[in-house]
Amino acid sequence: MNINNILVSGNYQEEFKSHLSSNLLKDFRFIPVEEITPTDLSWADAYVGPRPSPNFNFSNIKWVHSFNAGVNNYLEIEGWKENNVLLTRTVCSFGQRISEYCLSYILQDLQYHSQFQVKQKQKKWQQMTPKMLRDQTILIFGTGEIGREVAKTFASFGTTVYGVSHSGKPRDYFTEVTTVSNAAILFSKADWIISTLPLTKDTEKLFDRDFFNKLNGTGFINVGRGATVDEEALLHALNTEKVRRAILDVVTTEPLPVNSALWEREDVTITPHISAVTEIDEAIDCFLDTLRKVQNNEILTNKVDFEKGY
Amino acid sequence: MNINNILVSGNYQEEFKSHLSSNLLKDFRFIPVEEITPTDLSWADAYVGPRPSPNFNFSNIKWVHSFNAGVNNYLEIEGWKENNVLLTRTVCSFGQRISEYCLSYILQDLQYHSQFQVKQKQKKWQQMTPKMLRDQTILIFGTGEIGREVAKTFASFGTTVYGVSHSGKPRDYFTEVTTVSNAAILFSKADWIISTLPLTKDTEKLFDRDFFNKLNGTGFINVGRGATVDEEALLHALNTEKVRRAILDVVTTEPLPVNSALWEREDVTITPHISAVTEIDEAIDCFLDTLRKVQNNEILTNKVDFEKGY
Repeated sequence: MNINNILVSGNYQEEFKSHLSSNLLKDFRFIPVEEITPTDLSWADAYVGPRPSPNFNFSNIKWVHSFNAGVNNYLEIEGWKENNVLLTRTVCSFGQRISEYCLSYILQDLQYHSQFQVKQKQKKWQQMTPKMLRDQTILIFGTGEIGREVAKTFASFGTTVYGVSHSGKPRDYFTEVTTVSNAAILFSKADWIISTLPLTKDTEKLFDRDFFNKLNGTGFINVGRGATVDEEALLHALNTEKVRRAILDVVTTEPLPVNSALWEREDVTITPHISAVTEIDEAIDCFLDTLRKVQNNEILTNKVDFEKGY
Repeated sequence: MNINNILVSGNYQEEFKSHLSSNLLKDFRFIPVEEITPTDLSWADAYVGPRPSPNFNFSNIKWVHSFNAGVNNYLEIEGWKENNVLLTRTVCSFGQRISEYCLSYILQDLQYHSQFQVKQKQKKWQQMTPKMLRDQTILIFGTGEIGREVAKTFASFGTTVYGVSHSGKPRDYFTEVTTVSNAAILFSKADWIISTLPLTKDTEKLFDRDFFNKLNGTGFINVGRGATVDEEALLHALNTEKVRRAILDVVTTEPLPVNSALWEREDVTITPHISAVTEIDEAIDCFLDTLRKVQNNEILTNKVDFEKGY
């Protein structure tokens, strides 16, 4: 594909400058997302940024690159296939970032950080033996790039890792991969369930009361998308101890509303969607790498499949 | 070496039973440490347990196996070399246990667990980007089995790992290993310093005011032995921000006295010597593995070098 005119939504000229080699002969326009005009859109071959402009239309655009891993905001636009537009996303370091996020909270739990903090306040020297990662079983929803990287990290410590995916196909680092409809037998084996799922019509409120009812004091981590979880059902599962602890980096409405019951619970950890925040330098590197591959017609591992929605 | 009569200090018969194969033709005595008699000692070829009995003497003992990784309690006994007694220690899963302990606290810091916990209490959705392990530099004192396992774990995430040892010899997983006297130039590069050092006459109060004065807001983790740290000097280093945070699994006097200033500091985390607690099943496995090697005259990786003191 031949790309010449690149419209970047956002004032990123300075950040791009240090990443662009002088032999990259492309025209760039850097424009804040709210100020993009129809003229800018019709000028562009490619659109790059965290979200579509309010007046977005495909015009002559052949390729859109999201600065995020989740692309549900772009997928709300219709006509991708009809207009034959390529959509790619930023996945470069997300796998490692999300792995470290998940690992940090599971280790916090296994190493009894909170309990020892309480003992320290009481000046009590009271031993408990931390649990080891090799004795844990985790179940990861989503076996794409991010899920696989999470699986790889835990497997390297000897953790037993199961996966759940649309196809149920075996994947590296997973002891076993199954489909959503066959996953229930694995629920009782899991100490932790981690969701890396994108938001699609199939995953919306996938984690509902039926799902949580099958658990038995399991830890639940959501690093995918908030709307995959029915939050009322999650609160009920916490109250009935089906879920022992929830770590939520994503929630249905972000920022989480002040009146949400999730904020005040001791068995819930809320982080403000930071497990895979785009660091602009990495995002630019990922974009330039994708640009090179697009121009050379190389295989794109970060290309969005419109059937799957990610 | 031929071993027939094994004296185990402690009532571990039940635990041993499930680990002993019927073809292991050895005589065992299991006796609480305080009740061991001179007759028991003179009967034994081998002595196994967490510490020497109060009336301990070598008698006919050819081999002593400690249920701990640290053997300073055994080394207080004189005459190891004169009596040609082998001393071995339990190191089997300690490396992984200590790695997970260190990783849990460094990730807690990089992922801003405490900060997000405060924000959650305030119901504030405020993003900070977690730091990544690959951008960190750590310096490990001790490049033996435990130090190497810690290095391996961090290196697998792309962390830059330096080592400090008696010899300064290069070791796998370490970018560079240096001696204590040459280590100062690495101090300014380190985000975290981890000590895995045993207690010997060379390491006692090695971490003193001189040492801490060379740091510059560094994190300090002690998973070795408490008496390697001059605690007054550490408190001064925390007050002057030479040390940004200290994670202490070991302290000079254990349990830590109630009047210690360390308990109340927010920049100090105290855990009650749990980073490598001996799980009895693992300890027995390690002992039986060592027994097999002792009988077959195989190389022992857990043999104590009396010159080095570990």
